[in-house]
Amino acid sequence: MQQRSEETRARILEAALRRFAVQGYNAASIDQICTEAGVSKGAFYHHFPSKQAIFLELLNGWLDTINAGFEAVRQGTVPETLMAMTGTLPAIFASAGDQLPMFLEFWLQASREEQIWEASIAPYRHYRDYFAELVQQGIQEGSLAPTDPRIAAHMIVSLAVGLLLQGLIDPNGADWEQVGRESIQVILKGLGK
Amino acid sequence: MQQRSEETRARILEAALRRFAVQGYNAASIDQICTEAGVSKGAFYHHFPSKQAIFLELLNGWLDTINAGFEAVRQGTVPETLMAMTGTLPAIFASAGDQLPMFLEFWLQASREEQIWEASIAPYRHYRDYFAELVQQGIQEGSLAPTDPRIAAHMIVSLAVGLLLQGLIDPNGADWEQVGRESIQVILKGLGK
Repeated sequence: MQQRSEETRARILEAALRRFAVQGYNAASIDQICTEAGVSKGAFYHHFPSKQAIFLELLNGWLDTINAGFEAVRQGTVPETLMAMTGTLPAIFASAGDQLPMFLEFWLQASREEQIWEASIAPYRHYRDYFAELVQQGIQEGSLAPTDPRIAAHMIVSLAVGLLLQGLIDPNGADWEQVGRESIQVILKGLGK
Repeated sequence: MQQRSEETRARILEAALRRFAVQGYNAASIDQICTEAGVSKGAFYHHFPSKQAIFLELLNGWLDTINAGFEAVRQGTVPETLMAMTGTLPAIFASAGDQLPMFLEFWLQASREEQIWEASIAPYRHYRDYFAELVQQGIQEGSLAPTDPRIAAHMIVSLAVGLLLQGLIDPNGADWEQVGRESIQVILKGLGK
């Protein structure tokens, strides 16, 4: 019973991801998601209170994958960790590729609705905290020069966001992995002793 | 006669900017823009072939303002110029503030329509060329270490795009001007000899 319930939940999420990608977040209706998933509306609402809840689950699932990739390479010194993180860029680009319109639509809604706005900035804040802690660790281990870890974290997140956005909008405009790798090298030299 | 025509054109642009900000790009109709501007549809089409043409004119006007700010501080060495450019950040944030939803909507359309896509990536490519040329100048004058100017330009544009997007989505999340200034200092150290 538990297993069937989890399968239904997964089917709804997959159907929603496809509908959002094809039609966009706003145009895709719960009815259409139910039809594509082959589930009743009752089953849908058993698992999710709203379309927004599904979006947030998809977003968080994507972020969890990125975080797992980051954690997997977190070993050695902080500069080594940051360089190794650029190796996860191809996987991040690949998984984000079809989802850009969905993210843009969601940001658009976020700019108009307080509750969605809170949810949409949470990942930025999470990554700022994450990288601030990493920079702090680098200062402590002596691989980075003393600096304000929060400012350095904002810089790293800004670079990553700008790189991802340009890479998605203009995939052939540059070798974005190479830009990511060499940017981190420049920043490490800039933050070094 | 020429003067009245230019006044009409300016009134249409101002009305469109207000309608796009209030309703969003997709929801704002040419009828509504004409009513707000107090012009006939004939007068509208005399000046602009489409709503998209107005958007592009507004976008390019905004970019021209940014470019003029950049040119005004372009003196001294390249590191001095780059640092001085961060002084134009408050003006850029102020002028972009109300326009984020409009840009997001436009990117969304760009992800679905080839012609709009070309127009929407043109500014990125312009700035990449601009900063590549600036980095090249820095290498020639000896203020920057030899590097691939295009990669460095991609990095600077990525940082600027990410900074602007976060500053617009989360204006109180950080002192974004300070982040901009200190990021350029880190990058200059990273690109230095």
